[in-house]
Amino acid sequence: MSNIPKIVILGAGYGGVLTALRLQKELNYNEADVTLVNKHDYHYITTHLHMPAAGTDNPENARVSISKLIDEFKIDFVKSTVVQIRPQDKKVILEDGTLSYDYLVIGLGGEPETFGIPGLAENAMNIRSINSVRLIREHIEYQFARYKREPHRTDYLTFIVGGAGFTGIEFVGELADRIPELCKQFDVDPSLVKIYNIEAAPTALPGFDPELVQYGMDVLQKKGVTFRIGTAIKECTPEGVVVGEGEEIKSATVIWTGGIRGNRLIEEAGFETMRGRVKVDEFLRCPGSENIYIVGDNSLMFNPEGRPYPPTAQIAMQQGVVCAHNLVASIRNQPLKTFVFSNKGTVASLGKGEAIGIAFGKKYKGRVAAWLKKMIDIRYLFIIGGIPLVLKKGKFL
Amino acid sequence: MSNIPKIVILGAGYGGVLTALRLQKELNYNEADVTLVNKHDYHYITTHLHMPAAGTDNPENARVSISKLIDEFKIDFVKSTVVQIRPQDKKVILEDGTLSYDYLVIGLGGEPETFGIPGLAENAMNIRSINSVRLIREHIEYQFARYKREPHRTDYLTFIVGGAGFTGIEFVGELADRIPELCKQFDVDPSLVKIYNIEAAPTALPGFDPELVQYGMDVLQKKGVTFRIGTAIKECTPEGVVVGEGEEIKSATVIWTGGIRGNRLIEEAGFETMRGRVKVDEFLRCPGSENIYIVGDNSLMFNPEGRPYPPTAQIAMQQGVVCAHNLVASIRNQPLKTFVFSNKGTVASLGKGEAIGIAFGKKYKGRVAAWLKKMIDIRYLFIIGGIPLVLKKGKFL
Repeated sequence: MSNIPKIVILGAGYGGVLTALRLQKELNYNEADVTLVNKHDYHYITTHLHMPAAGTDNPENARVSISKLIDEFKIDFVKSTVVQIRPQDKKVILEDGTLSYDYLVIGLGGEPETFGIPGLAENAMNIRSINSVRLIREHIEYQFARYKREPHRTDYLTFIVGGAGFTGIEFVGELADRIPELCKQFDVDPSLVKIYNIEAAPTALPGFDPELVQYGMDVLQKKGVTFRIGTAIKECTPEGVVVGEGEEIKSATVIWTGGIRGNRLIEEAGFETMRGRVKVDEFLRCPGSENIYIVGDNSLMFNPEGRPYPPTAQIAMQQGVVCAHNLVASIRNQPLKTFVFSNKGTVASLGKGEAIGIAFGKKYKGRVAAWLKKMIDIRYLFIIGGIPLVLKKGKFL
Repeated sequence: MSNIPKIVILGAGYGGVLTALRLQKELNYNEADVTLVNKHDYHYITTHLHMPAAGTDNPENARVSISKLIDEFKIDFVKSTVVQIRPQDKKVILEDGTLSYDYLVIGLGGEPETFGIPGLAENAMNIRSINSVRLIREHIEYQFARYKREPHRTDYLTFIVGGAGFTGIEFVGELADRIPELCKQFDVDPSLVKIYNIEAAPTALPGFDPELVQYGMDVLQKKGVTFRIGTAIKECTPEGVVVGEGEEIKSATVIWTGGIRGNRLIEEAGFETMRGRVKVDEFLRCPGSENIYIVGDNSLMFNPEGRPYPPTAQIAMQQGVVCAHNLVASIRNQPLKTFVFSNKGTVASLGKGEAIGIAFGKKYKGRVAAWLKKMIDIRYLFIIGGIPLVLKKGKFL
């Protein structure tokens, strides 16, 4: 048995990958054993998934093999699914084994929040992983093929997106771009296709700049998206959704982007949670378990005004950097660093050549914003994989 | 009212298109009014449909716009669906109108023969049209995407092809070629995928040369196809098929290629039929209705040994030529020509680079047979569309 501390990182999302990459860089030889556990042997770029979901890009461009990102001489990689976290035993139970740790980093990602809406978990799809977006893409194409054999089923050509947050808006933008291609491919009259974006809040992109929101909605409406804002989905069935006062919208395709909650494994581990998320301390540690760090969607932090930061790739990446720093500092008995979120801005794509965003304290829209979005994506590829990854995947963005 | 005889051709399949093309060439100006009626504004190459069905070729390469084939100065084209044929009134009722005729050519194509097997009509797909093969292709891809979200559902990865005639054999050959690509695209272990080809007759390709049949089955088995020959499908359900003595094979995908019967419109018109097909006279006319010609799948003819010719593209094309000749002869009060089938041979594809066939009285297999198959396809393109069509579509074959 060695006395080298064991660090286990659960999840190779934005938070987990950044933690691993930084540990790989900062740790000295034999200073710690680091193991990264992930369900798949690839990392995926969640902020890019709206494109392969709509079919406007190949899913391959939204994922990177983990062996291309980490140096397996320095970090062990285990492809497995986490079944249980046991803080009291300092163990993680995997589908096919067990790992002991001295320090644990939880970056398992969230789960769709359905707010108890009946039928949503069973009948709606989610933009959450490579597998889930491949399903959405194939499902959509399948509906066009089915319609041609059952032309009375116009519900096959109705697409409902629940939630007009960033994911919902970006997805309807891509889907509206894809529809004319699909209509051509399957000989379908484009006027028969309907895209609904349904949002319970009184505005699309709640919390975002209202002028930009209006611009974005105008762009999307011109592309054929019908917005139902301030309209709650009451129920989701295999036949469609029920909204408002019992109005039924028939559709064979419902995609839910309305919210993210923490991972159930976190609750099951016995941590105190709010919607599955743990309010971490200023060093990103789990209260009462100073050897456990939580990054990304499962980590709850509040801004100076006392409102929770929304779970984004940006905050997860920044958390990964601080988490790795604090792990190294703990091992070296050095003082920990306080996490402070630095908002670099936000850009939402609206489909080809169109976007809205705020960056460097200024508003952007149209082609400039779309270009900014590309730069953000390329910057991310550079951070995780350097120039080679930018050259490999960046040209497709 | 003109006294020019009116010829109406129903269906732009092999028989109908060849009839139209020959009439266009042989008729003098104002000698007859010719109208071609078809459900779609394109002709499709049925013998090529196994490829787009499996996804090894684009459906666009299996169809040709009718306006590219016929000269609309000489022949009128009506895109409509035939609802009823009324021989007593010399009228054809279309979905959206009525046509009167003096001479009628029925080339409406057959329908799948399900032999009364319960559930087959409802739960199985057919390789019969551009729309039906687009459905099969999208359906297959969708099963791979679904499997990744529900990995216990191995029935999503089981593909059942009922019937080991030419269509069934050619389709499993293509499907076996496509599976490795799909497995790669969706990260699926190829060993989980099963292709069953189930045939009730005691051999695959009944009536074909037994040595070539054995060669073909060996090629396909090596590609991963499991044959169940001499095994009848007893029932088809949404969960799969029941064969033999109650054995259930679970599958989300059943494709039925087991037989063709005549079109129900022929029976409804009051003609005497055998499985929906009319035994035509030696001039291809309907007995008792000398102004009605029947070509292709709905026309029943017997070979010198008294066995019916199977419905193929080859016989339909030859019938089209003789039908056109006899129509012109009737108008000119010249003697009619007797139809004699000239067997040019048959080649069945087994997927990329492999085929079996008989042509010029000799047996062919492997690459030579695959090349012969290509030549047959190119010859057909040349017959219907000349060099321009060969250049446009031929390169994809």
